[in-house]
Amino acid sequence: MTRDEDQLHLAPGSRVGIVAGGGNLPIEVAHSLSARGHRPFVLLVEGEADPNSPLGGFDHLVLPIESFGSLVASLKKNGVTHAVLAGEIKRRPRWSAVRPNAGLLAMLPAFLAGLASGDDSLLKTVIRYIERRGVKVVGAHEIVPELLAMRGVMTDAAPTDSDRKDLNAALVAAHAIGALDIGQGAVAIGGRVIALEGIEGTDGLLERVKDLRDHGRLAARRRGVLVKCAKPDQEERADLPSIGPQTVDGAYAAGLAGIGVEAGRSLVLEGPAMIARANTLGLFIVGLPSAGASDGQ
Amino acid sequence: MTRDEDQLHLAPGSRVGIVAGGGNLPIEVAHSLSARGHRPFVLLVEGEADPNSPLGGFDHLVLPIESFGSLVASLKKNGVTHAVLAGEIKRRPRWSAVRPNAGLLAMLPAFLAGLASGDDSLLKTVIRYIERRGVKVVGAHEIVPELLAMRGVMTDAAPTDSDRKDLNAALVAAHAIGALDIGQGAVAIGGRVIALEGIEGTDGLLERVKDLRDHGRLAARRRGVLVKCAKPDQEERADLPSIGPQTVDGAYAAGLAGIGVEAGRSLVLEGPAMIARANTLGLFIVGLPSAGASDGQ
Repeated sequence: MTRDEDQLHLAPGSRVGIVAGGGNLPIEVAHSLSARGHRPFVLLVEGEADPNSPLGGFDHLVLPIESFGSLVASLKKNGVTHAVLAGEIKRRPRWSAVRPNAGLLAMLPAFLAGLASGDDSLLKTVIRYIERRGVKVVGAHEIVPELLAMRGVMTDAAPTDSDRKDLNAALVAAHAIGALDIGQGAVAIGGRVIALEGIEGTDGLLERVKDLRDHGRLAARRRGVLVKCAKPDQEERADLPSIGPQTVDGAYAAGLAGIGVEAGRSLVLEGPAMIARANTLGLFIVGLPSAGASDGQ
Repeated sequence: MTRDEDQLHLAPGSRVGIVAGGGNLPIEVAHSLSARGHRPFVLLVEGEADPNSPLGGFDHLVLPIESFGSLVASLKKNGVTHAVLAGEIKRRPRWSAVRPNAGLLAMLPAFLAGLASGDDSLLKTVIRYIERRGVKVVGAHEIVPELLAMRGVMTDAAPTDSDRKDLNAALVAAHAIGALDIGQGAVAIGGRVIALEGIEGTDGLLERVKDLRDHGRLAARRRGVLVKCAKPDQEERADLPSIGPQTVDGAYAAGLAGIGVEAGRSLVLEGPAMIARANTLGLFIVGLPSAGASDGQ
């Protein structure tokens, strides 16, 4: 993927709706649209996106996750033609608080089936549901192509030969667990994968590595890498793996030497701030060739 | 594997040496040999095996892990013809404390190569090294066949249909990370794998699941399973996956409904105590058909 040919052309009369979870991604999308003269509509998922963040400055509405049955109606009422699902949604609905309506009842069987078979299937279900009702779903990187990780070293520090071995080992493992829709990240130290991401997410994974190091299970010397890559069957319009300044801080605290992400299929959040942070801490960040089917490179 | 045909026949004049790490396994092996009229020799790895445990009652010697270069010499001096490597060895040698000798120098290149490519390769290297010097290495289950997990339900409680889905999902995942020599265990809840074992081990994995549940990332209702299975290319004479009463306690604390282990390729430590504990807590333990190459059953 190259950046320029990826950018979405928005015809006159179209409007982008951002279904906003936590983190900086929805903010970057909203700012980018605004800078290009568009006027996005933002649906803030309650408890995940902060109405006091810059998102509150845009035309917006707060939506409890339990009201997801009225999601499409809200978007359409506000003239939305294209929806972006951006930002983390950690909480699952409290089913006792879900108020049934027509939209929800139509969605529910597919939603429940998706829920049972993993996050990625769930997202695909939600996207299919939205598109069937006439709103096109696009990826955040189609609005802001600069978000996509480029191939190669992004930082002052570069991976050594030994770091390259760690990057390869972690990439193979991240790819394998991605194929099972389990997680997107792996940590390798000394050529060997020592921790895999599950439901706890990347921050939790890095905290665990930090704990292992603090408790002497790992050598104290700074080395090892985090690699994130997309699942082979990833729904690229939502939930691409992402890294940001917080990931750099977590990797530093875990004693790692750097971070690898799959180029073209990962998002870099707050890119300039993230790279500055990595340079200050002496970590490398590198965009790796896409993992492809099986060769781990 | 069936049990009876597996039991090792020890010819007169042969003596079993137990290289003992932590946990109950070396004790079970020593007791079993003793009950059959043999007189094992025990090498207690310092800081891992406890000299005040029943192992101290056998003919024994304490060996600092840094003195692994004299391992075979110690075994031979004590008439050992067959060695069993039993019990967990968590600590890695402090290289500054390693005193070079001829045995060590001969072993070192292979040892370092093994160390770089994962625990399983390391074990294979150590075993090859010992056997080349004339001591046969046998598995703990060849001495005590009752240690091998049998197929089927071992407890009062049995897995439900929904537990069976969790068992399948976790088995596939455990098998996949085993193929990468990363770990032997996976936890699935609601049909979905949520945590994978890395270097932290099974107890650490279960603690993590407990934390996720405590922090509300997982539903409070008791369900989900732990599955342990051997790596496809497992060195079966050492490091077969094992469960024991501690695993049952950990699974209970993590809110799981039960445990699955690969029958014939996993060890059950303190079997009667473990099953009694699971029955008290209402957990199931089930021996699963061997994972085989790829079908997850």
